[in-house]
Order: sequence, then C-alpha cells, then structure tokens
Amino acid sequence: MKNIQTYIAKHKERFLQELFELLKMPSISADLAYQPQLLQTAEAVAKSLLNAGCENIQLLETKGNPVVYADKIINPELPTVLVYGHYDVQPADPLELWDTPPFEPTLKKTKLHPDGAIFARGACDDKGQMFMHIKAIEILIATEQLPCNVKFMIEGEEEIGSPSLAPFIEEHTELFENDVILISDTGMISNQQPSITTGLRGLSYVEVELTGPNRDLHSGFYGGAVANPINILSQMISKLHDENNHITIPGFYDHAYVLSKEERREMNKAPFVQKDYNKALNIEEEWGEKTYSTLERSTVRPSLDVNGIWGGYIGEGAKTVLPSKAYAKISMRLVSGQDPDEMTHLFTDYFTSLAPKSVTVKITPHHGGKAYRTPLEAIGYQAAYKAYSETFANKPIPQPSGGSIPIVSLFNEVFKSHTILMGFGLNSDAIHAPNEHYGLFNFYKGIETIPYFYKHFTEIHTNHEK
Amino acid sequence: MKNIQTYIAKHKERFLQELFELLKMPSISADLAYQPQLLQTAEAVAKSLLNAGCENIQLLETKGNPVVYADKIINPELPTVLVYGHYDVQPADPLELWDTPPFEPTLKKTKLHPDGAIFARGACDDKGQMFMHIKAIEILIATEQLPCNVKFMIEGEEEIGSPSLAPFIEEHTELFENDVILISDTGMISNQQPSITTGLRGLSYVEVELTGPNRDLHSGFYGGAVANPINILSQMISKLHDENNHITIPGFYDHAYVLSKEERREMNKAPFVQKDYNKALNIEEEWGEKTYSTLERSTVRPSLDVNGIWGGYIGEGAKTVLPSKAYAKISMRLVSGQDPDEMTHLFTDYFTSLAPKSVTVKITPHHGGKAYRTPLEAIGYQAAYKAYSETFANKPIPQPSGGSIPIVSLFNEVFKSHTILMGFGLNSDAIHAPNEHYGLFNFYKGIETIPYFYKHFTEIHTNHEK
Repeated sequence: MKNIQTYIAKHKERFLQELFELLKMPSISADLAYQPQLLQTAEAVAKSLLNAGCENIQLLETKGNPVVYADKIINPELPTVLVYGHYDVQPADPLELWDTPPFEPTLKKTKLHPDGAIFARGACDDKGQMFMHIKAIEILIATEQLPCNVKFMIEGEEEIGSPSLAPFIEEHTELFENDVILISDTGMISNQQPSITTGLRGLSYVEVELTGPNRDLHSGFYGGAVANPINILSQMISKLHDENNHITIPGFYDHAYVLSKEERREMNKAPFVQKDYNKALNIEEEWGEKTYSTLERSTVRPSLDVNGIWGGYIGEGAKTVLPSKAYAKISMRLVSGQDPDEMTHLFTDYFTSLAPKSVTVKITPHHGGKAYRTPLEAIGYQAAYKAYSETFANKPIPQPSGGSIPIVSLFNEVFKSHTILMGFGLNSDAIHAPNEHYGLFNFYKGIETIPYFYKHFTEIHTNHEK
Repeated sequence: MKNIQTYIAKHKERFLQELFELLKMPSISADLAYQPQLLQTAEAVAKSLLNAGCENIQLLETKGNPVVYADKIINPELPTVLVYGHYDVQPADPLELWDTPPFEPTLKKTKLHPDGAIFARGACDDKGQMFMHIKAIEILIATEQLPCNVKFMIEGEEEIGSPSLAPFIEEHTELFENDVILISDTGMISNQQPSITTGLRGLSYVEVELTGPNRDLHSGFYGGAVANPINILSQMISKLHDENNHITIPGFYDHAYVLSKEERREMNKAPFVQKDYNKALNIEEEWGEKTYSTLERSTVRPSLDVNGIWGGYIGEGAKTVLPSKAYAKISMRLVSGQDPDEMTHLFTDYFTSLAPKSVTVKITPHHGGKAYRTPLEAIGYQAAYKAYSETFANKPIPQPSGGSIPIVSLFNEVFKSHTILMGFGLNSDAIHAPNEHYGLFNFYKGIETIPYFYKHFTEIHTNHEK
C-alpha cells in the first residue's frame, strides 16, 4: 500500500487533537446524569466519520443510548467489513487516585511507553482504539485505496453490558450485514510482540441468598443450635471445587471444548514467566486446576469465582450476631460449548442441593454470555496475521483471552461471520482503573496496521470466492 | 418477712415514676456524644441509693464512665451482699422501628404482659432490673428487716464490654469485698415458671483477614489461575466443623466441662418444644452438634459462629472482580474449662494451617471472657431458690444460659465468691432491639422476691459458719 506512513506522519498532530476532543467528553454510561454528554459524544463520533469520508451517517435509536452508523459502500460485489466499537466509558472514580484529571487528556512518558502515552478515561477503552478505525478509513479513502465496503457500529452502552444491543441488532440485521467484524477493544502481548485475541470466555453470573432464622439472633443464646447462614454458605461454596480445583457441578464440563495437545502446545509457547507473574501479584504460589498451566487456566479453561460475599456484622469491632441472611455473587467463566443459561441452571440445581434443610436458598441470575473462538483458518484471522506482519518486526501470536465480550458471540449467531479482535492495548494500560492510558506508539501503529487488514481481507476473500 | 407486699402496694406508683425518670435519660455508652447524660444518670442512681437509705454514696472514677458505689454496713460480722448492675444502655437505633420513643417510657399491655409493660430503652436491660434492687433495699431498711450488709456497684460501660471495670476492680478489691454477688441482668423462663441462670458461656472473638493478590483483579483475565481469597476463606471456614458439627480445632474440647448424665437429664427437663422453637424462627430444621439437644447446644456446649463476612463487590448488580482481600468475624462460645486466650491461640494456629500458600492470613483477637457456672450447692443459689419459692407459685428451675457476661468470671476470680443471676426479664422483652420493654409484673415481683434472698442468704450463711 502506498503513502500510509506518509499520510500518518503529515496528519499525526491533528489525529491526536481530534482524539483529545473525544476524550474530553465524560461519556459515562453507568451514570444517568451523563446522558447529555453521551449524546454529544455520539454526535462527535458521527462528525468524525463524516469528515473521514463515510456516508449515510445516522444516530440510530435504541432503547438506551444511540448507535452511530456510517458506511462507505464502494461496490456491493465486494466484501463488507463491519467495525464495532463503543463511545461510552467506565466511571472515573476513585478520582483521587488519578494523577491528572480523567477528562483532561495528558501526554506522559512511561517505562513501557517511552514515546509517550495519552492519559485519560477511555484513552484505550475504547475511544482511542475505536478512533484508530475512523482514521484508518480516512487514510484509505483519501489515498484512494479502500479495497472493499465498510460499515461502522459504534455503540454507547458497552460498559454497562450492552443491554440495548441485542434487540437493536435483531431489528437492523440487514443494515449491518457483513463478511467480517473487526473490533479493537482488547490488547496484545507487548509493543514488540503483537498478538491477536483468538478467544473469549463466556460468563454466567448469579447472586445467591441464604436465609436461616427469620431474624438476626444473638449468637450467645442461639449459637450452636441454629444453622448460621454464613457458615452454611461457606460450606456450600467450598463444595464447588474439589481437591484438584476442578469445578464439581455435575455436567459442567460435559460440552466444554477441550483443546488438542497441539493447541495446548502452541498456546503455551507464548512468552510467560510464572515467577514474574507471581511477583507482580505478590503471591507466593499460583493456584488452579491441576494439570493445566496458568495461561490455560486463565483463558481456555472454565473457572468459578466468588466475586462478592457479605452477611452479618461487618462494622468496626465485635458484634455477636447469628445473622438471618448471607449473600454471595458467584460467576463462572465459560469456554466454547458451555451454554450460559444451561450452566446457570446446572449451578442452581447443584448449589440448591448442597443446602441443608435448616436454610433456604434463593438464586438470581445476572447477565451472561457465550464464549467465542476465532478459528485460525478464518479469512479474517489470516488477513489480520498478514496485516501485523507488514507493520511489526515480529509475527503476531494467536492468544486466547480469559475475559468476556458477550456481544461477540451474539454477532457470530446473528451475522454468521467471524469477529477479528485486533486489540492494540497493553495489560498495563489500566483500563477500568485510575490513570488509564494508551501509548502513542499503539495509537499510530494501529492506524498504520488496520488498512493492511482491509487489503489482505479483500484479496483472500476474493480469491476464496473464485 | 413482714410488710413487704404492703410496702410495695403503698409505694408502687412512686417506684414506677422514679424508674421512669431514669429511663428518660439517654445513657448510651457506645456514643461519646452522650457523656453528659451518662454522668447525669450516674448521679440520679446515686441519689436513688441515698434516698433508699444507703450510705457512703460515691461516684468512683474509672478510665471511662464512673461506677456508683453505695453501701449499708449494719454489722461487719454479718455477711455482705454485693449488688452489681449497670446504668448505661444500648443505642436505640433503628429509631424508626420503635412504636413509641425509646426515651419516653410508655405503659402498654402485651399478650405476655396483660397487666402492662414499660416500653423504653433500658426498661429491662438493665435500669428496670437494677432499680428493683434499690427499691428492695429501701423496703428492707424502711421496714427494719435488712439482715446483713449490702454494697452496690453500678457501672456505666456494660454495653460496650466493661473495658474499665477489670483495672477498676483490681484497684478497689477491698472496698467491694463480699460474700455473694447478686445480679439481675438476665431472664427467666416465664412469669409462671421462674428460673435461675446457673451458667454463662465464655467468649473468644477474632477477626480474620485473607489476602490473595496485591490488588483487585479482573476475574476474566485471572479467574482460575489465582487463588480467590473469598473462595479460600469459605473453604477454611467450612473446615471448622466436621460432618457431625463438632468443632475441628485440635485441642478445642480438651478441657471443656462435660455435663454428667444426671446434669443433662435435669436440664433437659426444662419446658421446651422443638417444633415451637423452629416455628418461632421459621426454620424447617434445627442444626447443631450431633447427640446433643437444642437446649444443650445453645447453653452448655461450645459453639463457633461466623458473625460477619465480607469481601469483593457487594453493591447492586454484577461486577467481575477477583478481590485482593476477604474478611470474617468469627466467635466461639466457650464452656467451663476453656480459657478464652488459649482458645484464641488454638483457633489461630489451626485456621492459619488451613490456608494454602497462595494466600496470607492475619488474625486479630477481639474481646473475650471465661464461662461461669453457679454450683447448685452454693449458699447463694440455695437462698435464691428459697426466695423464688416464697413469692412464685412454682419452684424455680436452674437454667444455664448460652450468653456471656465476661465480668462474672472476673468477679469469681477476684472475689472468690459466687455470682447469683436472679434475672426477671423474659426472652420476648426485646433487649438490644427496638421496643424493649419490661413487664410491670416482673418489676414488682422482682422487688418482692429480692428481700427474701437477703433473708435466706443470711440465715444459711450464718448456719454454715456455725
């Protein structure tokens, strides 16, 4: 491709200033008070798409915040890339832990970003990464090298679980029809070693409530004679793993995808030093399912964590209460083949069966989502592989992630196309945390790499069709 | 004894009004804002003792709230009764659950108190019960029937664990020397069936803190590969009881007093219907140590309860955090022979040994206290038995309580005398809770019964000495 680097070099200051304008808008979807700022951000994104040369710009209504639509259809015979991203951000609190204000983007150098990084809420997740795609399309259009059609779906509720997106997609399936979906909302191993996220875990999340006696009791007068829901809840939770840290829920692993020896060998080639991992977390020893590595445990194997627990007296000092109730939030990360609704069902049956008659159990399901795997033979994966190979010194490594983006498996079901996760962030970028940042290297390298994806995807796709 | 009932009948309205004046004072020891009211209450108690005919009235300084002292020494050769009580009360919140204001004493009839009950914070615990003793002494002095010496120790920090009392007693051991200690700060079975509290459980209370990774982690990226301190804490708690609900701490039962078959048979004669107990608590099934009855489990057997637990995300909705820390407050009720410090030590050793290397454990002891048993052959117990027999239709039943009054075992150690727990409250009096109340029957019956204790104690004691 011609002039990509030249164009970036010429316009890099403007690109940054345009991103800064987006980052100044506190588009916090979790807080209803920021509704005007969310709309303002959606409008700014729409304007950027217009300026980039896109057409048919619309803010499409949903039950919640609008979705920004834009496209550039150069030839209906050519393949279509759908770019997904989000313009909403996480809340910025605790504010006191930010070194610079979260909505005043600031450039600072760090150890991993010697050329500087943009510090702001949303710098990496996802305004910075989403904006790379708008700039990549600007370049492709300006240099007359756009090889295929492109559509944009930039939503405003990702950070609250995309509650409006499923019905929205059902309603607009035709509008968003595509041959591949491209998302930059994940990370890569390092600036020297690019990687492509090839898997996401699914999620099943439940809240459990145990009730013992009908009121809080004095543990002196009743202790020893009445089941304490905290003690019982602890016992029940302890029975969810066996001594090998396998999950004990009957049927839990029945349809879980098991990696081949070859796949395991491949993924364990990723650079990983257990000692450094433990040191970074200040733990003496790792933990997990026997016979699996830390990389496997945290990405391609299902897991079960108590995310929150509470009950009884949790203030200062001592109070001798035998509480009426105890609660826990429990989530399971799922792998391919495990249906979230079925896992919630299996959990509910098993967990309820663990309760003695002296307590009652109530289980409320929260949101969930299926796991997703990008097959390495998919055209989109191959195109991404070639794109990174053009702009980085090292070839990219396929890397499954342990996290979940529930919308990805929904896309797969509705559009029957693969999602390619070209994330340019680093683990150390502090997304969802104070001092979120995004490297300038990563921002510009993303803008440089994405056009090559379009080129290679169109080429391979066209060859495939023949 | 002569004229006891006559005197009560003649002065009953005044007795009640005097108690009402005390109950109007919000002497909440847990809240430093009420220091002036605590002092005012101590002064009012001192004035009541003076009016009753006592001498040497003093507010004795402690590190905290003053102790009210008074005595009436009629003859150093005669035995001395020490009356212990407290003028401080529990906080009244949640205020919105009170039907009448907590510090505006109000008379109302209830199902169990058809003659009326006094509704106010402290009505039963302990102003109402403590004031019975002042009125009993007034009667004994006024009717010239006081058969022995009496001393009063009315403290102002019982509801916060009597932190100043131990050093205070060490300092004033001689002043408070006695032959028996009399306390009305417990309850009895019913207004038809009096009982004498013959045992109190001890207490060991600890707070545990588990630390896994050095910061809260995303459960997607780390779940399955890093020990979750909530899961681990649950496992550790579950190992504190075996399948028979015995406590598993090595050495825990080694010195625990075991009741004889005879003692077990006797105590299980107390009126008790398991079905009614379960129904009152709305539980389908009771719980506890195998081979013991509910009465035994809740009074003469040690127990272990988690009084509070917390960790991770406990707000609304779902958050996928793998937390850095998890906490629990855990208390053990102890029986005779179990030293609280030793039990805390045994717990700490065992609990720490249950932790895998992937977490660290910190254990902080809170307050504790030894168990206490009143031997049925003690002169004080016999005197109390005879006193109840004079004023109630039914003979009193000895009844161990599962609660703890740490100061009682301290008294036993310092003064070498027995404590007799003549409580006239009912379980339903809602002490420490909204709408605390104390039956008029119980108030006047207490005033009537206590003088007979003095009579019989002096008689038996004198015969014993001979």
